[in-house]
Amino acid sequence: MKSLAALVFPGFQTLDFHGPIEMLGDHDPGTVDIKIVAETLEPVSSYHGTRVMPDRTIQDGTDYDLLLIPGGDSAPLDPINEALNAWIVETSEKAQYVMAVCTGTVLLATTGLLDGRKATTNKKDFTATVHHGPNVEWVKEARWVEDGKFFTSSGVSAGMDMSLAVMEKLFGDKAAYEIARGCEYEWHKDSNWDPFAKLAGLV
Amino acid sequence: MKSLAALVFPGFQTLDFHGPIEMLGDHDPGTVDIKIVAETLEPVSSYHGTRVMPDRTIQDGTDYDLLLIPGGDSAPLDPINEALNAWIVETSEKAQYVMAVCTGTVLLATTGLLDGRKATTNKKDFTATVHHGPNVEWVKEARWVEDGKFFTSSGVSAGMDMSLAVMEKLFGDKAAYEIARGCEYEWHKDSNWDPFAKLAGLV
Repeated sequence: MKSLAALVFPGFQTLDFHGPIEMLGDHDPGTVDIKIVAETLEPVSSYHGTRVMPDRTIQDGTDYDLLLIPGGDSAPLDPINEALNAWIVETSEKAQYVMAVCTGTVLLATTGLLDGRKATTNKKDFTATVHHGPNVEWVKEARWVEDGKFFTSSGVSAGMDMSLAVMEKLFGDKAAYEIARGCEYEWHKDSNWDPFAKLAGLV
Repeated sequence: MKSLAALVFPGFQTLDFHGPIEMLGDHDPGTVDIKIVAETLEPVSSYHGTRVMPDRTIQDGTDYDLLLIPGGDSAPLDPINEALNAWIVETSEKAQYVMAVCTGTVLLATTGLLDGRKATTNKKDFTATVHHGPNVEWVKEARWVEDGKFFTSSGVSAGMDMSLAVMEKLFGDKAAYEIARGCEYEWHKDSNWDPFAKLAGLV
């Protein structure tokens, strides 16, 4: 059993968050124990106005095997949320794998944890956001990037492909394939597949 | 402004629901007003144990432009939930478009609204579930099926492609393309694309 802390903040992007939840949670129910974590236990509204209920707060501990950080235009980048960033740092240090999706990668970068590492992020927002992580080796063309325990993905739907790659590492190729098939999802297994970098004029 | 009733019930499948929310809600924020509807206002747990907060109950009315019905192994098929089905019927009669994903299509079928119509559903569960809609013309190989105001999709991730098709009808091809691109999502625009029917031995 792996434990997952799935972070939310007001305005988080719906699919950044729930796409990975589907892929990470669909292997033998109970294999990954998912807890939604927020700053308080109050309902948290997504960008689309739909609300999720946190299971725990950032005061309730930092012991999780896996961490998921979604993005959203509202990601608390400027000013930096010091309490949240401290929780991300401590949780990441203990975790086996840390995943960030879309501009969630930039939020992760503001902690300094990606300094000197390769990472990618949303392609449309690339140029406008990567300055928040000046010491990160940002990769312009990638569906997702793995560097040590850190997995960072391109925008929104890319989080699903990255999550399947993490499931492959944890439980093997067959398990990840079966999850994708069960979801009738065309898994992009090649982390270099990224037509959106070109569309955004990055390459 | 279009209004969307997005139905949830205990055990609803995460991506069946939130994939369409992302695609339907991402065109010019506010263009589609999303309300989560449930039997009560208590938090509703998904199959993965994550909880969403309903905005309205099925007692709060049936006037919506769009209806979304997700699936899940827990979809209330047997015994039929009469109050819920009555709400689905009345809401569908008033709606411009009715969308159902995965086994949510079978839930919709139990109301009789799909009788004499073409529809599709989850491919792995196809044979085990379509008997709940004996008068539906079930299509074994399709990403999604449009028949009149009813859009029904194959399993889980197929709901995103179907939702983009509905956005194309409502707001045009360019709008749907921009939503997919913003989500860095490879939209399967061909409703006949369905490799999963063959994998399930249906064709």
